[in-house]
Amino acid sequence: MPMPDTISSTISPEGSLEILSQHEVNRLHDTSRTGLHDLLRSCALAVLNSGNPTDDGLALMETYPDFDIEVLQQDRGVRLKLTNAPAEAFVDGKMIRGIREHLSSVLRDIVYVYNEIQTHQRFDLNTGEGTTNAVFHILRKAGTLKAGRDPSLVVCWGGHSISREEYDYTKAVGYHLGLRELDICTGCGPGAMKGPMKGANVAHAKQRRAQGRYLGVSEPGIIAAEAPNPIVNELVVMPDIEKRLEAFVRLGHGIIIFPGGVGTAEEILYLLGILLHPDNADMELPVILTGPADSADYFKRIDEFLVYTLGESVRRLYRIIVDDPIEVARTMRKEIDAVTEYRRARQDAFYFNWRLTVAMDFQSPFEATHEAMAGLALHREQPVHELAANLRRAFSGIVAGNVKEKGIRRIEAHGPFRLQAEPELMTRLDELLTSFVGQGRMKLAGDYVPCYTLG
Amino acid sequence: MPMPDTISSTISPEGSLEILSQHEVNRLHDTSRTGLHDLLRSCALAVLNSGNPTDDGLALMETYPDFDIEVLQQDRGVRLKLTNAPAEAFVDGKMIRGIREHLSSVLRDIVYVYNEIQTHQRFDLNTGEGTTNAVFHILRKAGTLKAGRDPSLVVCWGGHSISREEYDYTKAVGYHLGLRELDICTGCGPGAMKGPMKGANVAHAKQRRAQGRYLGVSEPGIIAAEAPNPIVNELVVMPDIEKRLEAFVRLGHGIIIFPGGVGTAEEILYLLGILLHPDNADMELPVILTGPADSADYFKRIDEFLVYTLGESVRRLYRIIVDDPIEVARTMRKEIDAVTEYRRARQDAFYFNWRLTVAMDFQSPFEATHEAMAGLALHREQPVHELAANLRRAFSGIVAGNVKEKGIRRIEAHGPFRLQAEPELMTRLDELLTSFVGQGRMKLAGDYVPCYTLG
Amino acid sequence: MPMPDTISSTISPEGSLEILSQHEVNRLHDTSRTGLHDLLRSCALAVLNSGNPTDDGLALMETYPDFDIEVLQQDRGVRLKLTNAPAEAFVDGKMIRGIREHLSSVLRDIVYVYNEIQTHQRFDLNTGEGTTNAVFHILRKAGTLKAGRDPSLVVCWGGHSISREEYDYTKAVGYHLGLRELDICTGCGPGAMKGPMKGANVAHAKQRRAQGRYLGVSEPGIIAAEAPNPIVNELVVMPDIEKRLEAFVRLGHGIIIFPGGVGTAEEILYLLGILLHPDNADMELPVILTGPADSADYFKRIDEFLVYTLGESVRRLYRIIVDDPIEVARTMRKEIDAVTEYRRARQDAFYFNWRLTVAMDFQSPFEATHEAMAGLALHREQPVHELAANLRRAFSGIVAGNVKEKGIRRIEAHGPFRLQAEPELMTRLDELLTSFVGQGRMKLAGDYVPCYTLG
Amino acid sequence: MPMPDTISSTISPEGSLEILSQHEVNRLHDTSRTGLHDLLRSCALAVLNSGNPTDDGLALMETYPDFDIEVLQQDRGVRLKLTNAPAEAFVDGKMIRGIREHLSSVLRDIVYVYNEIQTHQRFDLNTGEGTTNAVFHILRKAGTLKAGRDPSLVVCWGGHSISREEYDYTKAVGYHLGLRELDICTGCGPGAMKGPMKGANVAHAKQRRAQGRYLGVSEPGIIAAEAPNPIVNELVVMPDIEKRLEAFVRLGHGIIIFPGGVGTAEEILYLLGILLHPDNADMELPVILTGPADSADYFKRIDEFLVYTLGESVRRLYRIIVDDPIEVARTMRKEIDAVTEYRRARQDAFYFNWRLTVAMDFQSPFEATHEAMAGLALHREQPVHELAANLRRAFSGIVAGNVKEKGIRRIEAHGPFRLQAEPELMTRLDELLTSFVGQGRMKLAGDYVPCYTLG
Repeated sequence: MPMPDTISSTISPEGSLEILSQHEVNRLHDTSRTGLHDLLRSCALAVLNSGNPTDDGLALMETYPDFDIEVLQQDRGVRLKLTNAPAEAFVDGKMIRGIREHLSSVLRDIVYVYNEIQTHQRFDLNTGEGTTNAVFHILRKAGTLKAGRDPSLVVCWGGHSISREEYDYTKAVGYHLGLRELDICTGCGPGAMKGPMKGANVAHAKQRRAQGRYLGVSEPGIIAAEAPNPIVNELVVMPDIEKRLEAFVRLGHGIIIFPGGVGTAEEILYLLGILLHPDNADMELPVILTGPADSADYFKRIDEFLVYTLGESVRRLYRIIVDDPIEVARTMRKEIDAVTEYRRARQDAFYFNWRLTVAMDFQSPFEATHEAMAGLALHREQPVHELAANLRRAFSGIVAGNVKEKGIRRIEAHGPFRLQAEPELMTRLDELLTSFVGQGRMKLAGDYVPCYTLG
Repeated sequence: MPMPDTISSTISPEGSLEILSQHEVNRLHDTSRTGLHDLLRSCALAVLNSGNPTDDGLALMETYPDFDIEVLQQDRGVRLKLTNAPAEAFVDGKMIRGIREHLSSVLRDIVYVYNEIQTHQRFDLNTGEGTTNAVFHILRKAGTLKAGRDPSLVVCWGGHSISREEYDYTKAVGYHLGLRELDICTGCGPGAMKGPMKGANVAHAKQRRAQGRYLGVSEPGIIAAEAPNPIVNELVVMPDIEKRLEAFVRLGHGIIIFPGGVGTAEEILYLLGILLHPDNADMELPVILTGPADSADYFKRIDEFLVYTLGESVRRLYRIIVDDPIEVARTMRKEIDAVTEYRRARQDAFYFNWRLTVAMDFQSPFEATHEAMAGLALHREQPVHELAANLRRAFSGIVAGNVKEKGIRRIEAHGPFRLQAEPELMTRLDELLTSFVGQGRMKLAGDYVPCYTLG
Repeated sequence: MPMPDTISSTISPEGSLEILSQHEVNRLHDTSRTGLHDLLRSCALAVLNSGNPTDDGLALMETYPDFDIEVLQQDRGVRLKLTNAPAEAFVDGKMIRGIREHLSSVLRDIVYVYNEIQTHQRFDLNTGEGTTNAVFHILRKAGTLKAGRDPSLVVCWGGHSISREEYDYTKAVGYHLGLRELDICTGCGPGAMKGPMKGANVAHAKQRRAQGRYLGVSEPGIIAAEAPNPIVNELVVMPDIEKRLEAFVRLGHGIIIFPGGVGTAEEILYLLGILLHPDNADMELPVILTGPADSADYFKRIDEFLVYTLGESVRRLYRIIVDDPIEVARTMRKEIDAVTEYRRARQDAFYFNWRLTVAMDFQSPFEATHEAMAGLALHREQPVHELAANLRRAFSGIVAGNVKEKGIRRIEAHGPFRLQAEPELMTRLDELLTSFVGQGRMKLAGDYVPCYTLG
Repeated sequence: MPMPDTISSTISPEGSLEILSQHEVNRLHDTSRTGLHDLLRSCALAVLNSGNPTDDGLALMETYPDFDIEVLQQDRGVRLKLTNAPAEAFVDGKMIRGIREHLSSVLRDIVYVYNEIQTHQRFDLNTGEGTTNAVFHILRKAGTLKAGRDPSLVVCWGGHSISREEYDYTKAVGYHLGLRELDICTGCGPGAMKGPMKGANVAHAKQRRAQGRYLGVSEPGIIAAEAPNPIVNELVVMPDIEKRLEAFVRLGHGIIIFPGGVGTAEEILYLLGILLHPDNADMELPVILTGPADSADYFKRIDEFLVYTLGESVRRLYRIIVDDPIEVARTMRKEIDAVTEYRRARQDAFYFNWRLTVAMDFQSPFEATHEAMAGLALHREQPVHELAANLRRAFSGIVAGNVKEKGIRRIEAHGPFRLQAEPELMTRLDELLTSFVGQGRMKLAGDYVPCYTLG
């Protein structure tokens, strides 16, 4: 493989980091030289590489072994010194402004917000309230919470590795959402995370909607595998996958789920596990599962798995619409109008869903070690909501083993994760995962070698 | 063929027609019921149909035989009553705003400006000065002339019927132009008229350039065949092809020519015929011919034809760059910076190139009747600039016979146009046209039956 | 008297004159060198002198005998060359931007619009429709007609030479209007034309109303005597007093009349003469006469004069409110809300009152010569509306004799105007005029020598 | 005295308090019911009373004994419940928007920022660095620090109780500063704190400068006595007088001092005491003392007192300009251009003067008790800079005794403060203070009874 072109340059951050105290500048500078440096380096590289899709965080680092980033300190603020950065991030020697903004977002969230949240006694991350408060503060700091805007944010989930037909379908849905003045929030990588934004972008142009939002919510482990696509005009890097998921469900006014692999399964289990909580019984949060004609079978399979694991009543929480982007968009528009009424009636904020109860089970970070994966209780002799939480963890671990740098290194060192479950659940889980593999939903390129074994 | 979905609705125009005198309202109303009604109807239909590309103006009218548009008169202004309009122009019963803007532009230019220009003794359209003045007034009325903006407008010409590879190439060029903060002006149809806008649009999003311009310049005869694509955010309908061409060369700060058919050949002849005028000897107006690797031969052929007909010296007026979008964009950026200096030094306006001399030969409208086509003097026993003008007319007539409603009807009634030329020129012309046919550049769909014979 | 400081400089016009055709530039240049040059010169001087109030147009010209203005022609547009301009218009050598805007407005209206209106067969100024159409075009050209804005424009009339107490009262009224988000339109001189704007300006600042309008409507004869005060942020110079009055009543959504002299009397007669027209019987146009406690008697006298001349029924057209700025503002706010409903119900434009009928008697320019003044029919043996028109002319002539350059010269040459009226009307007119003189309402400085005799 | 009109109403805060976490809402609600309630109540009343100038904080509270403010808690944010608030703050039942903004600023700074600063270990207010950091954070929270704006902020100090002539002079200076595109920052009360803003406001209107800044910096003890005037469009309430003074000198790009009383004397001593610090030897911070012709003697006296106490070299730190507003404005414009160059050369921030050294002596809050006042070392046997600090405290204490609620109560209870000083200093101090009394600079209304005795 030829060495890729690189550029070294010093740039000013954009937007969020303009007015800093001397103390903050020092801290940014110091922090970036200590333990967080590796994190900052890998996230920055992911953002700078956004033009060249890959879902392999490890490979990316190996492609640019000499890349580095340094925070320079000035009275007036900070400057970022980049060494051997991907040349595609620049035009005639000047960094593309959108990438500069993404880079500033990464710096803001990784270094700055991390300091604020972790060194501050106010945020007791061992409590649900403290965790939610932290999520709120990170999002507010990022400028994501906008007062005075009517509900319009549709969270779109689905695979990063999907077929051309599925991708075109996500674009079509995004297009018809955009025609109806709705905005898009995704995990900000390729596939189902890019399609709806592209579609909405064209529709917003047609509707002359200048203030369209394309919000990407990522986390350090995933950003290299699912780098923000160019359309993302707001980027937030949450500290971990659980806070990222909480951000999605508190920000979104409706949720659309496209076909995907284990990551999408993780998101579905998370979402339904929460909505099944008794406190959320009357919560207004529309959920639509949709895909092109070919995906009818896929959703049938998911639906059966959900009913088997979470019970028949789960079905009232979502609608499945196959091969009808306009119907999806019309339904979502109508439902979000209902959300608006719901929140207005209760004087709830439009920009953050405080009223939603998220149990601690879904908030605690899950570290996918071999031990933790092996120890997951995957049986139906527990409350539905606990099973949902454990299944969510199982899927989360497989995602890590597939695409995250840390997870890949673990699998390389110790072999596949070993999951235990009661027999029928085991069978159904196996079928589901095998179908994901068969449909190529696990990984973008190359043959897929499972990072897990069952039983 | 099934009947397409239609919608009937009454809408308010957008933007340009808001503050009218009672007299103007009356006139709009009256004019729209007399001779101009057919013109307004066909142009409006083209705009409303922008989502469904076709290049056959006649077929479009036949698909929507019951479509009609009426201007309603109110004290406060006008309303437009649409009957059986294409349903794609609406979302949940409300017209897409961009299409509403295009519709208003059509009304403004077709009815209103026509009245102003034609009933006004100020514009003597038999003189060059009067014609240029009319072009200026139409463009100013349309809000196209913007003071206080640095030169950035790249006119892109090329075929509406091009290969996928060529289309992708035009997108790539547009993308790299957009990264360099340049704007796009085209004839506003599909193919090479859409690609650069799409590319620039993505690049402008990456560069957070909110005020990007996607200017479409059309004329009544061509608009149905080359309807404005959704990205066009400024639309002007010039009264005829000659004023449309003059608008291009007076608005543009640089011109890029992609592969195309007779329409593109017409544009090249027009442009070089003008630039060869002695008064324009020191004019700063960069021209680049470019296409993907495969198009090298195409441009070689064009180049030879130009040298044969216009002489060796024509080569100093353009550069050919093959298969290098970045080089194209970089060159154009540099040249447009030079244009900026040039105009600043002479205190010329940035928004309208007054200094360019356009001879009357290139300004007089050419009506492509069988007689006029047969009578064109196509030989080298005349000044280079006159030959260029006549060749321009010949290509213009073939375009009309291919895609314009009026031209198609003429060919249906009287058979193909008959062109006469001196022998070698005839041979070369034949080769060129035959190559256009062979490469499918004449028409979007179906087998091409030439609308002309040579000799 | 010492020579005042002057500055010579060349400036670019601001706002309205940026994008001109070469033909328009030539015409501006040529026109400014012919008959209109004197007019342009005196209006420009008035605007440049806005910091130094005077109401004597003749004296102003004599103070700056060497002042001159020239329109320079460039490809890109025009430049204005000023020679010996009042130094107060500049700060450290650079013209104050607001004054630059006023200067551009003057140039636009005096030279440019004059050409458009006069050389254009469309405007038959011998008909009411043609005149109204001309008024509309001048106002639209000036950007005064704004679509999409709710009715908010209060026209304030009253004397330029008023007592401190009256001036403070006009400020208080303006302040309370401004607190209620209303805008001000006046004749743009000192006194009652400045006070309401100053008050509204403070109130708008308190209400954070950034888009407050302070619209001044002048005419060439009056501008030197009543130069636009600094707060005016939109200036229109109408061609004559009659079109200026028509602009007021078609633009305003409500009218407030403060104490004043003959000019104010002219305005009252004009307004009521029009509102008495049968076609305007159901017209919604609130009129309030108001002043401080001391002015109760003043309004009683006016009221009696109106009833005597126009009949008892005139009283339903206005309300008199003494010494209560808050009540004035509250009433006006409520009435303008009613105007909004009225226009909405009839789909009338908000920005121009097309529905108001103005009889030709009130539209025809009245040239105040000695003959014309002597010939006015001032008796009650004619329809009320004709008497109103003739009284309006009588007051108009006295204004001219008091402050307009041309009128002053006539009086200097031929002595006072001689007015004839039937006996009782004569007596009442005499009392009214004498009271104006006694209250110092005729002229800003010096002893007042009447420019008229009665009987 | 009749009971003033009051209104009870519930309003939403404006601007700064829109997006709050539930925790923050709770804290706002709780805090407002505990110790800070009195503080909030008195500051809120001061703001609501801004139309009725008084400088007696105690009297104000007694005029509105039933006034109260309560923070209501909603999921969506907070609401403010006002009981018996001054009716002048409302128009037809709706609070004036500017006052609503001021009220939100007060709430933000008093309750919210107090919590942040005081409960946060980051701000060690016993150190200079911690104090400066706190000042920075309060100002940033208030939106006062604006990146990307060139230096333009002129701090204007001077008396709240000044003569009409002096007031008009401060307006004239503000006017000429405004004409030169400079902004105004003051202590936000009447007199010399209002005049420059009024003048600049008119000038900014003339220059069409929409973004003019009128920044008021207050503190809880002073706000009731010097309530923000209506023009203030940014209000910050610093926690104490020392942080308020530090805010002035770190925000301002130049400082103008008009005639005043002890408050002004305190400010001069503070400023010069700091500028005399060796670290600030090359600091670029223009200081101009100016007033109308009559004030020449006043400044001569101040100048002599400064030279006597701080030494001859103090004179290089300021310029005295008498009776020449244009010269003041021109000089300031030129000096601020130099400040811009200075900061640019050192890559200093424009919005906060980090480079200025402020010794701890000037940062520690001084509580004006009888003991503290009696114990001040007022002699020349100490470093110049310490004497300056002590004199600053002495003047500060007298201000408190004159106008602050707490100080007035102390004097009522224990009689006047007793100040000790070495003989000649005592004499000179006596003369200075006596002159302030003689010129009516101590208090707005009534005969002045000194709150201090010397010796």
